Amino acid sequence: MPRPLPPRLAAIGGSVFSRLAAQISAASQPPAPLHVGDTHRPPPPGCHVEALAAATHPGLHRYLAPQGHPGLIGDLAAHLSARWGCAVDPARLLITPGATGALSAIAAATLEPGDEVLVIAPYWPLIVGIIHTVGAVPVELPLFAPGPPPAPAALRAALAAAVGPRTVAVYLNSPHNPTGAVLDVAQMDAVVDVCRAHDLYLWSDEVYADLSFVGPPPPVAPRAPERTFAVGSFSKGWGMAGYRCGWVLLPPDPALRGALWKMVTHQSYGAAHPAQLAARAALAGGAAWQAEARAEAAAVGAAAAARLGVPAPAGGSFLFLDLRGCGPSGLSEDDATHEILVRCLDAGVLLAPGRSCGQAYAGFARLCFTAAPPALVNRAVDAVAGVLGR
Amino acid sequence: MPRPLPPRLAAIGGSVFSRLAAQISAASQPPAPLHVGDTHRPPPPGCHVEALAAATHPGLHRYLAPQGHPGLIGDLAAHLSARWGCAVDPARLLITPGATGALSAIAAATLEPGDEVLVIAPYWPLIVGIIHTVGAVPVELPLFAPGPPPAPAALRAALAAAVGPRTVAVYLNSPHNPTGAVLDVAQMDAVVDVCRAHDLYLWSDEVYADLSFVGPPPPVAPRAPERTFAVGSFSKGWGMAGYRCGWVLLPPDPALRGALWKMVTHQSYGAAHPAQLAARAALAGGAAWQAEARAEAAAVGAAAAARLGVPAPAGGSFLFLDLRGCGPSGLSEDDATHEILVRCLDAGVLLAPGRSCGQAYAGFARLCFTAAPPALVNRAVDAVAGVLGR
Repeated sequence: MPRPLPPRLAAIGGSVFSRLAAQISAASQPPAPLHVGDTHRPPPPGCHVEALAAATHPGLHRYLAPQGHPGLIGDLAAHLSARWGCAVDPARLLITPGATGALSAIAAATLEPGDEVLVIAPYWPLIVGIIHTVGAVPVELPLFAPGPPPAPAALRAALAAAVGPRTVAVYLNSPHNPTGAVLDVAQMDAVVDVCRAHDLYLWSDEVYADLSFVGPPPPVAPRAPERTFAVGSFSKGWGMAGYRCGWVLLPPDPALRGALWKMVTHQSYGAAHPAQLAARAALAGGAAWQAEARAEAAAVGAAAAARLGVPAPAGGSFLFLDLRGCGPSGLSEDDATHEILVRCLDAGVLLAPGRSCGQAYAGFARLCFTAAPPALVNRAVDAVAGVLGR
Repeated sequence: MPRPLPPRLAAIGGSVFSRLAAQISAASQPPAPLHVGDTHRPPPPGCHVEALAAATHPGLHRYLAPQGHPGLIGDLAAHLSARWGCAVDPARLLITPGATGALSAIAAATLEPGDEVLVIAPYWPLIVGIIHTVGAVPVELPLFAPGPPPAPAALRAALAAAVGPRTVAVYLNSPHNPTGAVLDVAQMDAVVDVCRAHDLYLWSDEVYADLSFVGPPPPVAPRAPERTFAVGSFSKGWGMAGYRCGWVLLPPDPALRGALWKMVTHQSYGAAHPAQLAARAALAGGAAWQAEARAEAAAVGAAAAARLGVPAPAGGSFLFLDLRGCGPSGLSEDDATHEILVRCLDAGVLLAPGRSCGQAYAGFARLCFTAAPPALVNRAVDAVAGVLGR
């Protein structure tokens, strides 16, 4: 190799499943895939790629402008306007290859090496790596587990205490992956207050916005449009994670739009054209599907939580299980969790190690209750409960 | 805005069409889109997304592993093995959102701020921005126009003279965008020699490999597998640019594979699942389509070149037109070219300014002869010839 790899790469973890790889490949049949945040439900009727006939969409194979399909952008602006009860300017929207593509472009467009982003933990596993890719530093704040997210005053105090001279942004995710919490208005306002007081960007990851079981989550961008990157996706809310289509609503500053456009253009040249047409169809006709998917997720999540003796999730697709004390004694938290995950795998269920959601969570594991059909999730949860003696 | 934008962003140009934006929107009907490297031909039969029935591909909407569909990786390895006459290890392949996604991940995984990449000019317009996104420096070497690419000794000397202490890689593109040149074995070897002598990576952009009109281009990766990133795409060779599916064949060093995996994972989480299934179908059944597409492109390109009085392209999708002396006198090259592009637009044809392919090419323009059906390209070329008085 001509050059050593950039040191920033060493800060990014490899696959969190590498320690389980031998057991996974040795399994006699594939385990229930409750480790990944996916949806077993296919997209709404008419929103599958097979519905995209070349005869009715003659340019379907061709490039789109990297900022996205103009029709999708317009429809999405209308959708968000209706959801939030305030006008959303389509000029502030960019379509991206999933929320991952959006957050990657935001990081690349706004961070310098050494800049810090406050990341509320536990967190969506990819966010710290996205920050590391540009040589910036994720500062983990283990605030949302164990126990529920702090009350507004405590949340405000904890965030403010972590702000330093290199802090550029706060990463917030609600409905929350992995705890299932949904922040209320006062908690949102606490986060917004800190961002405003310290002139920080707010990265609001809203990919589970359609999977809130306690009513629509309070909108974030309208509280602080000047500093909020609101990131969404068609992956979870419309069952098309594999299509790779998400978006970001930007602050109105045209320089920021230019910067994000540059990054989306050069990182991927935008989301796939068929994915964008499928997304547009989902916006037009996916409401009933969403209601069904949400009701199913709420019921399956509540049943799983009851079986495992933890509080029912308020939204999202996950339970975050505290395994401390459940594994063999005399081991480190990492090793004890690994033993439990191996036993779960022996029982036919793959879970994600809590460490993938934060350095403070070696004693935890994440379970996704939307990644398989309800009957399979119920059986898998029973198996996990057996391993945990619950 | 909480922070000034990182200075590396300023180095990335905006849309090269912004100066023509007013004229484009004022046009009474859309101009012939010969500015972008696209294919008017839809993908081979059976390789459209509409052929991807959920019933036969039940997990089509779900995440794939970010490195790509294992079946596509295996089929692509077999395809490249057959094309190159040597074994290609599937473990060295990653699937990416287009060649753009591959080159973006390579840049992010291997470059430090201030590192230099030698970019043979004129070049594919996005490559310099991709290098700038990570704060590295593209060093433009205007070697491939005007006139054909240099003979091997001159090419070797010109590249070697440009190598400095921060040089990390050479970017090479053949069949060449925008000149239509296809390097022969001796020219390839000259580039490889310089990379080996100075321990540089070779970024070999081969997205037009299936559009060589002079026989298969000499393979690059087998000449220097230890340092070559061979980048390909389904966009041009199989008519699916909008699907966003490409690949990179890596050097065998596992650390490089790990680094690229990290970048693809965090920049986009990989190419769209339907795109990868369409690509797999194209590998299985696209050979006849490719032969037809290649024959059509060769004929249309040769006719366009003859009409415009320039040499016929040996491959690719472009003519690179030297406009110096054709525009109004007394203007800068930039302004004179702009005037010609406005006249072309008035005549119904959109071309790309040569400046998008290199700082040395303000007096040039790029014409894509595959972006519209042959009859439309022929009419558009006639119109351009009229503007140029040819």
